[in-house]
Amino acid sequence: MDKTRVAIVGFGTVGTGVARLLLDHGDRTARHAGRTLWLEAVVDVDTVRVRDVELPQGLLTDDLTRITGNPEIEVVAHVVGGVEPARTIMLKLLESGKNVVTSNKAMLAEHGPELFDRARELGRSIAFEAAVAGGIPIIANISQCLSANQLTSLRGILNGTSNFIVSQMEEHGTPYAKAVKEAQRRGYAELDPTLDVDGTDAAQKLAILAHLAFGVRVHWSQIPRVGIDKLDPADLRYARELGYRIKLLAVAKLADEGLELHVSPTLVRVGRPLAEVREAYNAISVVGDAVGQLFYHGLGAGQMPTASAVVADMIDTAVGRTGITFKTLELWSNRESPVTIRDFSKLPSRYYLRFTVEDRPGVLAQIAGVLGEHHISIASVIQHEHAPDGEANTVPLVIMTHSAVEGDAAASTKEIDRLPCVHGKSVRMRVLVD
Amino acid sequence: MDKTRVAIVGFGTVGTGVARLLLDHGDRTARHAGRTLWLEAVVDVDTVRVRDVELPQGLLTDDLTRITGNPEIEVVAHVVGGVEPARTIMLKLLESGKNVVTSNKAMLAEHGPELFDRARELGRSIAFEAAVAGGIPIIANISQCLSANQLTSLRGILNGTSNFIVSQMEEHGTPYAKAVKEAQRRGYAELDPTLDVDGTDAAQKLAILAHLAFGVRVHWSQIPRVGIDKLDPADLRYARELGYRIKLLAVAKLADEGLELHVSPTLVRVGRPLAEVREAYNAISVVGDAVGQLFYHGLGAGQMPTASAVVADMIDTAVGRTGITFKTLELWSNRESPVTIRDFSKLPSRYYLRFTVEDRPGVLAQIAGVLGEHHISIASVIQHEHAPDGEANTVPLVIMTHSAVEGDAAASTKEIDRLPCVHGKSVRMRVLVD
Repeated sequence: MDKTRVAIVGFGTVGTGVARLLLDHGDRTARHAGRTLWLEAVVDVDTVRVRDVELPQGLLTDDLTRITGNPEIEVVAHVVGGVEPARTIMLKLLESGKNVVTSNKAMLAEHGPELFDRARELGRSIAFEAAVAGGIPIIANISQCLSANQLTSLRGILNGTSNFIVSQMEEHGTPYAKAVKEAQRRGYAELDPTLDVDGTDAAQKLAILAHLAFGVRVHWSQIPRVGIDKLDPADLRYARELGYRIKLLAVAKLADEGLELHVSPTLVRVGRPLAEVREAYNAISVVGDAVGQLFYHGLGAGQMPTASAVVADMIDTAVGRTGITFKTLELWSNRESPVTIRDFSKLPSRYYLRFTVEDRPGVLAQIAGVLGEHHISIASVIQHEHAPDGEANTVPLVIMTHSAVEGDAAASTKEIDRLPCVHGKSVRMRVLVD
Repeated sequence: MDKTRVAIVGFGTVGTGVARLLLDHGDRTARHAGRTLWLEAVVDVDTVRVRDVELPQGLLTDDLTRITGNPEIEVVAHVVGGVEPARTIMLKLLESGKNVVTSNKAMLAEHGPELFDRARELGRSIAFEAAVAGGIPIIANISQCLSANQLTSLRGILNGTSNFIVSQMEEHGTPYAKAVKEAQRRGYAELDPTLDVDGTDAAQKLAILAHLAFGVRVHWSQIPRVGIDKLDPADLRYARELGYRIKLLAVAKLADEGLELHVSPTLVRVGRPLAEVREAYNAISVVGDAVGQLFYHGLGAGQMPTASAVVADMIDTAVGRTGITFKTLELWSNRESPVTIRDFSKLPSRYYLRFTVEDRPGVLAQIAGVLGEHHISIASVIQHEHAPDGEANTVPLVIMTHSAVEGDAAASTKEIDRLPCVHGKSVRMRVLVD
């Protein structure tokens, strides 16, 4: 049987998973690739720590030239985290003639155009299924399986850490800080979970998916984003009362005016598939003009789901499919972006608003008045007798609006927050409509 | 830009959809394939009927040699229904040097091995994403995206017609015959819906998926199957009372003893993604040892979802990806089947049982006694005062069992049906456990 020599750079969690699939389950790659993927080297700065896989003697090294200097190695799994030295290693691999499979989303989000340009110049390929949504093969699905479609919408729960935290808060009433600790204990969250919970990670993934799905070339930092780090359990309760769950949604949606693009905690009606995504799962709903709506649900992270995506890419690269895809798709090319990004302040949405107001007559009228001045009409109102954790003389006022424009919604709540009858800062979240 | 000349055989609903995507949206195939798919000919016996697409003058013909005799045509969409003459046309296309994309599941289920052998001999490829689950790209997902996994389970709602009918019955209390009529009116069901509602269609699709996922070579007629054509609305009501919905499930599940394989109406707990599939949607849940559980949901049939899958395959074939996949996967090859199919009578399952029994003391004891003799233990019982549509002196007795063996369950209900206190024939359905 033919043999393709491969290597791994980065012997952390995912690298260990990749080594396990290659070494312990070589039979299945042989069956699916029609050839053996033969592991020649594993490179990591740490050659001492014991990992959960048994490498053959002499495979592990801290010397990258064991790969770059070996012309027989054709495919390399680049499973190094962070932006640098990940980027430099990636360039060295490409320049030494390797086709690379990477799981590094942050690096692609930051340096995708440079890396893809370089790979093209060198006649090499980059595959990156594992970089977005882990075990859900959304990259292949968008770039190959749905290629007959004009995609019109993509909505995803792309950060499993955030979803886990919000699920814990909603289902068990766990406070935010405790839910973060639990996520860390289970290995879902980093020691510093900032990039997960503030929406950065989801925005980076959305930038990659939006590029594939709509051709738009956007840096993740240009995507308006709100995380779940300020989420109040009270809003999860009120949302449930209204028949919704709150999910950190990444949205890319095409309209005549251009592409809507943002990441934010969003109310999703109970029973809709996106609302029912629990724990650290990811999910993506895609709409194409021919295929209609497709929904994917699976593990967005973790050692083996991510390794599954990496090894599938290694097989695709070894047999030649990746090379074809990479050439035909012209990813992050200099081709002009076919769509413009819509002005965030002009995007329409329904909104969930919560104010802490004084418990006296005329307050609702005042607030409704300000909303009306900003062309925002009220769909429903919840006002309870007393907030369980509020000040003694105030009550929470929850308003669901009809469709309004982001800029109007922002301006009106800012104005309402200044009313003497309103205490503290209001809460405002988008509501998923269609 | 490079041009790949293509053709369509079969100008029915799907063929019209394929022509629309190629003619009206040539820009996107150009963008995703890096080349134009240039429609050279459309062949159908009926060249007169008006279709919902405008073909350029002279493209439509009833002469297949316009394709087989034109060496410039490389890729052909074979969107002809039925087994013959579909098979003969397929062979002619392959023998004239064409790579073929087909949506014809019945033909593949019947003649897959012959057609794939012939294509291999001739150095041609066959792609068939559209043959199973329409718009859900399950073929590519199993054969490429999940190639690093040993799949352990595949469960699907693969027949949209049945799902539509059962959803109508459950949600609106529509009688079976009326639900079938409604499915026909909406174009979901054929004039003769037998193959959809008796489980044949789902078994044919399951045979294809089980071959891809587990390598097993099985003719669909060997798969034990029960349809929804005998489903009683009463059982939908009792299932709901117990917290379940009834779905026509196709199941392939790997165990040490071999592969479990069957199609049957199955109770699925409310809230599980498979239970929440409504209307004519399809859904598939796949478990792989590395990736964990993946869930896909989308339109399983219809003009444009199916055409979307056909055109994606045409693009893959034109750029060369299909050729690689076809060669490496050795579909329906003479390679030995790596797993055996488990004896159906020895499969374990929980069961839903319903008996119509005389309303007098001792009856439950008698029935429980027979079950006990067959090693079947009872998990829960519902007995109402009177069946709304039953005989005056009888009551329905609904029993949920713990896990039992199919053969025991069948033997015990047969024996119970012969008891003098039991009227008519019992109902027995599987319950999805894990």
